[in-house]
Amino acid sequence: MAEILTNGTPAAPCCMMGLVTKALLFDVQGTATDFLSTVRGEAQRISVGRCPGADWPEVVRRWRAGYFAALDAAQSRERGWVSVHSVYREALDPVLDECGIAGLSDAEREELTLAWQRLRPWPDVLPGLIRLKGAFTLATLSNADVSAVVNISKRAGLPWDAIFAAEMAGVFKPEPAIYRMAATYLGLEPAEIMMVASHKYDIRAAGELGFRTAFVARPLEFGVDGDADVAYSDEFDINASDFGDLAEQLGC
Amino acid sequence: MAEILTNGTPAAPCCMMGLVTKALLFDVQGTATDFLSTVRGEAQRISVGRCPGADWPEVVRRWRAGYFAALDAAQSRERGWVSVHSVYREALDPVLDECGIAGLSDAEREELTLAWQRLRPWPDVLPGLIRLKGAFTLATLSNADVSAVVNISKRAGLPWDAIFAAEMAGVFKPEPAIYRMAATYLGLEPAEIMMVASHKYDIRAAGELGFRTAFVARPLEFGVDGDADVAYSDEFDINASDFGDLAEQLGC
Repeated sequence: MAEILTNGTPAAPCCMMGLVTKALLFDVQGTATDFLSTVRGEAQRISVGRCPGADWPEVVRRWRAGYFAALDAAQSRERGWVSVHSVYREALDPVLDECGIAGLSDAEREELTLAWQRLRPWPDVLPGLIRLKGAFTLATLSNADVSAVVNISKRAGLPWDAIFAAEMAGVFKPEPAIYRMAATYLGLEPAEIMMVASHKYDIRAAGELGFRTAFVARPLEFGVDGDADVAYSDEFDINASDFGDLAEQLGC
Repeated sequence: MAEILTNGTPAAPCCMMGLVTKALLFDVQGTATDFLSTVRGEAQRISVGRCPGADWPEVVRRWRAGYFAALDAAQSRERGWVSVHSVYREALDPVLDECGIAGLSDAEREELTLAWQRLRPWPDVLPGLIRLKGAFTLATLSNADVSAVVNISKRAGLPWDAIFAAEMAGVFKPEPAIYRMAATYLGLEPAEIMMVASHKYDIRAAGELGFRTAFVARPLEFGVDGDADVAYSDEFDINASDFGDLAEQLGC
C-alpha cells in the first residue's frame, strides 16, 4: 500500500522505497491487446460463412490454452528455440478438430495463425501509453515473437521505446532470465522498473525478482463468457482498471 | 544502379530484385547521431574552463579510435560481454593522458562517458525517419549498449519500431551474427532489409549477407578537421547525402 505523506496525499507509487520508477514493462497478448476479438474476427472473415455453427470465442480460448501447454512443453524439452508463430500453428489443428471445424485449408489455417501478429490494442492502450511516455521509458516484455510485437505495435502506433521479447532471452515468461534481461538492457535496477500485466503469474514472477508490479484488469480477455481473473490484490504495487487508470495512479 | 521502367522512371530501389524492401536498419553512432559535437560539448561543460588548451575534437577522435581498438580486443578475447559504456570509460584515461589533460576527476570522467548515451541526432534524422516510417519498419542496429540507444532515442524522439543492438547478439558489427539476428527478429529475408550507415565496413558486411545497402555521407562525423570517407560508390544500392535524401530515393 502506498505510504501517506504528511499532507494526506498518498505517495506516488513511482517514488516508493527510495528508488524512482523509471521504466514500465508491458505484457502484450491480453494486457495490451484484445486477442479474443481480433482472432475471432479473423476467423469469421477467413471462414466466411462456411463454419456456421462454430463457437469462435471457444476456439480462441482453447487455442490460447493449447499455446500455453505447448510453451510449457517447449521449456521442459529445451530443444532449442521455437517461434511462437509455429507454436500457435501447431496448436490450431487439434483445437479445430475438438470443435468439429473441418472446413479450413492449410493456407487458411496459416492465415488465421497470422492473426496473432495483428492483435488490436484495447481502446485505452494508445491514449494511456501516450500519457505515460513523457514520464517513463516504455517497453514490451512479451512471450510473442519479436516480429509479432513489432507488427502489432506498428499497425496500432503503440509508442514503445523498446521491444523486448522472450525470443531475445531464449526463455519464456515467467522464467527469471527474461525479466533480468529487460533490466540489463534498460541499464536499471529491478526496483526502478514496473512490470504491467493482466496475468498474475507474470507480475508475481517479476515481483519476486524485485520489480514493481502493476495489475491491470482485463475482464473481457477471454470474452463475455470467459473467466478472466480480475480481482485486485494488495500484493501488487498498483491495481488498475485500464492503462488510463494506470497513468492516473502514476501521476501522469 | 536502379533499373529503368518503360516510362523512363527509375524503379524505386525498394522494389529491385523481386523482393520489396520492408525494413531499414540504422547504425546509430555517427550515422544517426553527431557524436563529435555532443561529446565535445559535454567535455567543455564538465571541464568548464579548467582545460583551456584542450583540443576536444581531437580527444573525441582519439577516444572513438580507442573504442574501436577495445571492441576488436573484446571480440578476440571472447571473455564474455563487455558493456560499451565500460569500453568507453576504460578508453578515456589513456586518451586524456596522451592529450595532456589532467584536470578531470573520476566522477567527471564517468559523467563525460555518459555523453555517449546522450548523443544528439543530425538535424536531418528526425524528419527523415518520420518520412520513412509510413513505408518501412525502422530499427536500429547499433554496437552501442541497448540502454544507450534507448536513452538517445527517447531524448530525441526518434520513432524506431524496434531497437536492436550488439548486446542482444553477443557480438559486435561487422560480425555476421548480428545482421542475421536482426533479420530473424524482423521475420524477414535479408533481401527485404536495407542496412543504412555512414561506415562502409558496416554496410559491406550486411551486403555480403544479402542485405540491401544504403550509404549516407556524414562529412562532419569527425569534425571539420576530420577525414570522414564520404565517397559514393556503385557497390551500394543507395548513396545518400542525408536521411531526407534517403527518404526521397526510397519514394517516401
